[in-house]
Amino acid sequence: MTHFADRLLKACVSKGSPVCVGLDPVLERLPDHIDSAVPADAIESFCLSVIDAVAEHVPAVKPQSACFERYGADGVAVYHRVVAHAKAAGLLVVGDAKRGDIGTSSAHYAVGLLGGDHGCDSLTVNGYLGGDGLEPFMQVAEQTGRGLFVLVRTSNPGGDAIQSLKLEDGRTVSEAVGDVVAALGARCVGESGYSNVGMVVGATKPQDAAQLRERYPQQVFLVPGFGAQGGGADDVRACFKPDGTGALITASRSVIYAYVDKPGDWTSRVADAAKQLRDEVAAILG
Amino acid sequence: MTHFADRLLKACVSKGSPVCVGLDPVLERLPDHIDSAVPADAIESFCLSVIDAVAEHVPAVKPQSACFERYGADGVAVYHRVVAHAKAAGLLVVGDAKRGDIGTSSAHYAVGLLGGDHGCDSLTVNGYLGGDGLEPFMQVAEQTGRGLFVLVRTSNPGGDAIQSLKLEDGRTVSEAVGDVVAALGARCVGESGYSNVGMVVGATKPQDAAQLRERYPQQVFLVPGFGAQGGGADDVRACFKPDGTGALITASRSVIYAYVDKPGDWTSRVADAAKQLRDEVAAILG
Repeated sequence: MTHFADRLLKACVSKGSPVCVGLDPVLERLPDHIDSAVPADAIESFCLSVIDAVAEHVPAVKPQSACFERYGADGVAVYHRVVAHAKAAGLLVVGDAKRGDIGTSSAHYAVGLLGGDHGCDSLTVNGYLGGDGLEPFMQVAEQTGRGLFVLVRTSNPGGDAIQSLKLEDGRTVSEAVGDVVAALGARCVGESGYSNVGMVVGATKPQDAAQLRERYPQQVFLVPGFGAQGGGADDVRACFKPDGTGALITASRSVIYAYVDKPGDWTSRVADAAKQLRDEVAAILG
Repeated sequence: MTHFADRLLKACVSKGSPVCVGLDPVLERLPDHIDSAVPADAIESFCLSVIDAVAEHVPAVKPQSACFERYGADGVAVYHRVVAHAKAAGLLVVGDAKRGDIGTSSAHYAVGLLGGDHGCDSLTVNGYLGGDGLEPFMQVAEQTGRGLFVLVRTSNPGGDAIQSLKLEDGRTVSEAVGDVVAALGARCVGESGYSNVGMVVGATKPQDAAQLRERYPQQVFLVPGFGAQGGGADDVRACFKPDGTGALITASRSVIYAYVDKPGDWTSRVADAAKQLRDEVAAILG
């Protein structure tokens, strides 16, 4: 059992870039030749092919649970098979489920989604319920050498109405959540200097990202929003330390649907887009 | 298609009390004679019997998704069958899944858990991502005559570290989230005067509950924490308007495990506990 952040940083060095491909399969956007008569089967076929196409080029993938849960229990079965396929392909898997509840319920989610042979390498969680809602996820993460990414500053415009509000003590709401997360995470810092408890920090708020980067030196940032959601080079740079560590940049639609309106083998277009993502982020980091 | 809040209030009048039984099945606590060799089968058998035992006495049940997801896709299949069984028994179903994501992902969750024939009557959601993360849930709720309960003030001790913080404008974080929710909910207020977008407000914070009750006249409060989590009569009273409307009081463990260390037929003990919950809350409301 190794430490999640240590494994993640090693994998990013090994693949040459700290990037992650988001698996957000949407039936209407799948390649024409994938039979969509049974939706869950179609998204499974698609995701397994995407994983095979990108595995050589990136260190991690991030299946979006919502896209699978849309299809009920059959979709959830596909989610778990997609996770298993990605792990077997040597990828680190970030389960993007954004769960969060009071402790007794969080404990069930942690077992179901993060623990056991079926669990992801790390899981996104929601910290609105505070430390005791996160604790059961922490315990499973520590026992299994896995990790968490707690929502701190999200990439969507509406997040501002809550997360960027100022508290009377001068912090933002994001920082209040982040402080709870950092305090919890301090007990499980790996050899890399990073905790197995990271944070989700969107790539669309560069000023916030820079402040959060300064404030939370032990947290790896999972950074969605690059590409389709509008995040660019400056946004990405703000999420890293000067040594080029500290973040995992995620792109979903710009990679997995890279074949749209392009000729040739669709999986080659996806592989090309994964390589492009890898190279772009590596270039930004110099 | 009728309005969720209107349906809920009518059901509470019809059953004589605004209460809800939480379905949080935990394998280790099931009655001895339920075969636990296949955990998902065991919790299904248990939940279906509990539903049959309480259906006559209460207006609503609240399955806790975590307890089902713990068992993977098989557990999720059971969750959906439990929802269907409760609806067929004439109960309103609050799906307690606490989902929340950016809009594109929330739209998938909304279809998977709230929409369609398989959807619950209402769903708990997390508002930390702001209004655009809630909007897709709203749209499905409006299209289907169903409802939402957004986490505002949770019942666990750790919620204080985030939710009770004061903003520089004098509001608490709970109120900032609540204000987003109330603004969204204003567009779908039923004949009862309540919106189909309600709030989760724990029964363990009576002062906060009273302030929130005053501030959000159009929101039904889903109130967990009565009984096992420590909420009592005063806590419950604070969640209602003087006319006795405006909240749905939930108890889980004190009802569904009422047979522990008691003799006789276990489903009769559960039914007795549901009646007791119903009568206790009715008495509190006078």
